[in-house]
Amino acid sequence: MEGFRVLEIKKSVFENNDREADIVRQELKRDKTFLLNLMSSPGSGKTTTLKATIAALKDELRIGVMEADIDSDVDAATIEKTGAKVIQLHTGGMCHLDAGMTRQGLVGLGTDDVDLAILENVGNLVCPAEFDTGAVKNAMILSVPEGHDKPLKYPLMFTICDVLLINKIDVMPYFDFDLEECSRYAKKLNPNIKIIPISARNGDGIDEWADWLRSEVNAWIR
Amino acid sequence: MEGFRVLEIKKSVFENNDREADIVRQELKRDKTFLLNLMSSPGSGKTTTLKATIAALKDELRIGVMEADIDSDVDAATIEKTGAKVIQLHTGGMCHLDAGMTRQGLVGLGTDDVDLAILENVGNLVCPAEFDTGAVKNAMILSVPEGHDKPLKYPLMFTICDVLLINKIDVMPYFDFDLEECSRYAKKLNPNIKIIPISARNGDGIDEWADWLRSEVNAWIR
Repeated sequence: MEGFRVLEIKKSVFENNDREADIVRQELKRDKTFLLNLMSSPGSGKTTTLKATIAALKDELRIGVMEADIDSDVDAATIEKTGAKVIQLHTGGMCHLDAGMTRQGLVGLGTDDVDLAILENVGNLVCPAEFDTGAVKNAMILSVPEGHDKPLKYPLMFTICDVLLINKIDVMPYFDFDLEECSRYAKKLNPNIKIIPISARNGDGIDEWADWLRSEVNAWIR
Repeated sequence: MEGFRVLEIKKSVFENNDREADIVRQELKRDKTFLLNLMSSPGSGKTTTLKATIAALKDELRIGVMEADIDSDVDAATIEKTGAKVIQLHTGGMCHLDAGMTRQGLVGLGTDDVDLAILENVGNLVCPAEFDTGAVKNAMILSVPEGHDKPLKYPLMFTICDVLLINKIDVMPYFDFDLEECSRYAKKLNPNIKIIPISARNGDGIDEWADWLRSEVNAWIR
């Protein structure tokens, strides 16, 4: 038995936005657009992974990106250089996107000429996990320097994601990151989660990730 | 000129908890307890830095730690081994602590025998920056693998912190992290911010950080 006390200070601020998320998905189905919601901590490599993903799929799929940030435009400027269609969403301080905000983003982006829309959510492992954006699939990135214990500390994020990309495997030798233990923690929360180790910087694992994404998009839009 | 559009989807959910934060500070002053609010992304090394901080100061100051987590107890179990007084706060899914929650935590911890109370906030660069907890000083950790552009993307956090600890400098050779550029971005947002590069793992910079903290605590409680 541990000697410290545990104090519950629960306080609910979460609204139910499930109905609106279902409407977003119906609209996406009708418009033949697949929406991926990409989440992670700040600095785990969402934008670099996105660049590698666009490079791998841009000849087969028409890709549109929604860059959600609190108030900067740096990521949209980076993504624009890939040639993909991009819109910057400013959340005005909000720490996540809900279905209504995502819907505004999709209207702003325009989905008529988009097969694969990707929402780069705000860098945050907590709040984005609470709100269904209406995406068809959820993916998250955990990077090696963050540590393999993160599923224990941010369980909901790992529970709601279809794919876990473990990024920055090129620096594995310099960190105490146990890939097997991380996978075991994640699978315990979510037995169906697909885990793909990648290095967005050097391209390792990007083919496997692009294969998964291509097959999901084609199943949705065809 | 960039070609993408910027869509503002501002939506205010922030409550004014400034009055309660001021009450917390008055109570701390009366009780001769200094409260440090320690914030960062998940995985940037808050708990390891805390262990090194406790080791450096435990012979001079009576230290109490409030570990805020969504629902795990792993960090409190780690801190308990240092011999410091510790309480685990469960936020029940909440992504940050406000002044009211911090006050409940301080009552739960008990401050009669605590000179230095440290709140390890939820791992998140967004929401904790919005809420004054009532702490006397705010410190944040940015770790090298997260990238030097983070002040551009999470500006409020850098604006409200008194100290920026740049952690994991031992792995600097393996990342494209520009310390000078990071410092320039941070100082532009907050000219008074004190920047201390550290490695919580090997102890680099911990003396300078402990010196700063000791002097702040003594100025408050004596």
